[in-house]
Amino acid sequence: MQVPVIQQILKANDQIAAENEKTFRAAGVHVVNVMASPGAGKTSLILQVLDRLPGLPVRLGAGVIEGDIASSIDADLIAAHGVPVVQINTGGNCHLDAPMIRSALDHLPLDNIDLLFIENVGNLICPANYRLGADLNLVIASVPEGHDKPYKYPGMFASADLVVLNKYDLAEVFEFDDAAFDRGVRMVNPTVPIHRVSARTGEGVEAWLSGLLQQLALQPA
Amino acid sequence: MQVPVIQQILKANDQIAAENEKTFRAAGVHVVNVMASPGAGKTSLILQVLDRLPGLPVRLGAGVIEGDIASSIDADLIAAHGVPVVQINTGGNCHLDAPMIRSALDHLPLDNIDLLFIENVGNLICPANYRLGADLNLVIASVPEGHDKPYKYPGMFASADLVVLNKYDLAEVFEFDDAAFDRGVRMVNPTVPIHRVSARTGEGVEAWLSGLLQQLALQPA
Repeated sequence: MQVPVIQQILKANDQIAAENEKTFRAAGVHVVNVMASPGAGKTSLILQVLDRLPGLPVRLGAGVIEGDIASSIDADLIAAHGVPVVQINTGGNCHLDAPMIRSALDHLPLDNIDLLFIENVGNLICPANYRLGADLNLVIASVPEGHDKPYKYPGMFASADLVVLNKYDLAEVFEFDDAAFDRGVRMVNPTVPIHRVSARTGEGVEAWLSGLLQQLALQPA
Repeated sequence: MQVPVIQQILKANDQIAAENEKTFRAAGVHVVNVMASPGAGKTSLILQVLDRLPGLPVRLGAGVIEGDIASSIDADLIAAHGVPVVQINTGGNCHLDAPMIRSALDHLPLDNIDLLFIENVGNLICPANYRLGADLNLVIASVPEGHDKPYKYPGMFASADLVVLNKYDLAEVFEFDDAAFDRGVRMVNPTVPIHRVSARTGEGVEAWLSGLLQQLALQPA
């Protein structure tokens, strides 16, 4: 009895995701769905990008949709950087879905936005199952979580178009096994780019941002 | 249409959780439901406890149920310590439920177990909604995740009978705000004990274990 209901929900979600995609295309908005564990550094890395956009040769307007169970801590941080942001509180839901994104679009100046980050709820499981209408899934892992995460959450890493390993400045402290991590990612996603960065020191952020913009066709390769 | 189905599922789950609880009581098994983000240190802290049990004045047999989306990495670690362990792979499910626990019980020597850890799926959201039949909910947070987690995942911290803040040896590196963290926990759970520990250095583990055993009435206060 449960399975058909869930399939219906996913099907309805996919339909609205396709509509969101059309809306984004029409407005020239490139959309990144950011997924990670709680505290992996989603907001910190988005802020690192926002700070670097004005220095790029190509002028890009940014926007952010923040997904959280509760609170507006992250949205407040983004707003303090002068970037348009909408907070979605999911109540108890462990992921964003396409209807939530659709309802957020009315509150964003899409015509001024070239690059939209959707920060999903902190969770390595459910968000991977719900299409939102984004161009690219960015999965952020972080060194303190350990190198075994791709083996434990294969669905999330399989869904990634781009993997960022954050807090890499602490790799030695945590005896992080780079080869084991990469092997785990490659098992489920053989060709996805993997970037090593630190939102704290800024190390690796420029190369990652450049790769991201190339994948979105917002910058020549 | 969805809500009644979910309510039915939760009701059926609660019923089986109550049966699990009876089974545990009858066998003299004290049960801890361990919940946390991916990589917060659930397995590491369980291993720290297992290593300390032989040194306690009271002799306690241990057992572990490991919940993961995929893999048996953690169960293999536990088994290497000579402790009975059952691995549950949930497939895609973001939490353990009472029927999964019931099916695991047949594979554990309950009569030899006084203290059973159930390591839930790494997730700060869904696991809090499913009773398993445990005596105590242990929520583990970790310093690298940041001090804002109780504000973002209030349901999880509200469900806790005991909070452990792990990786506390790195509090300075991460500029962890202790007062903000405690305030966030207290907002939703005014009286829950909060222990600061490091699974890496062992700091704080003894005091926490002592508190845990007292809460389970396995050690005099």
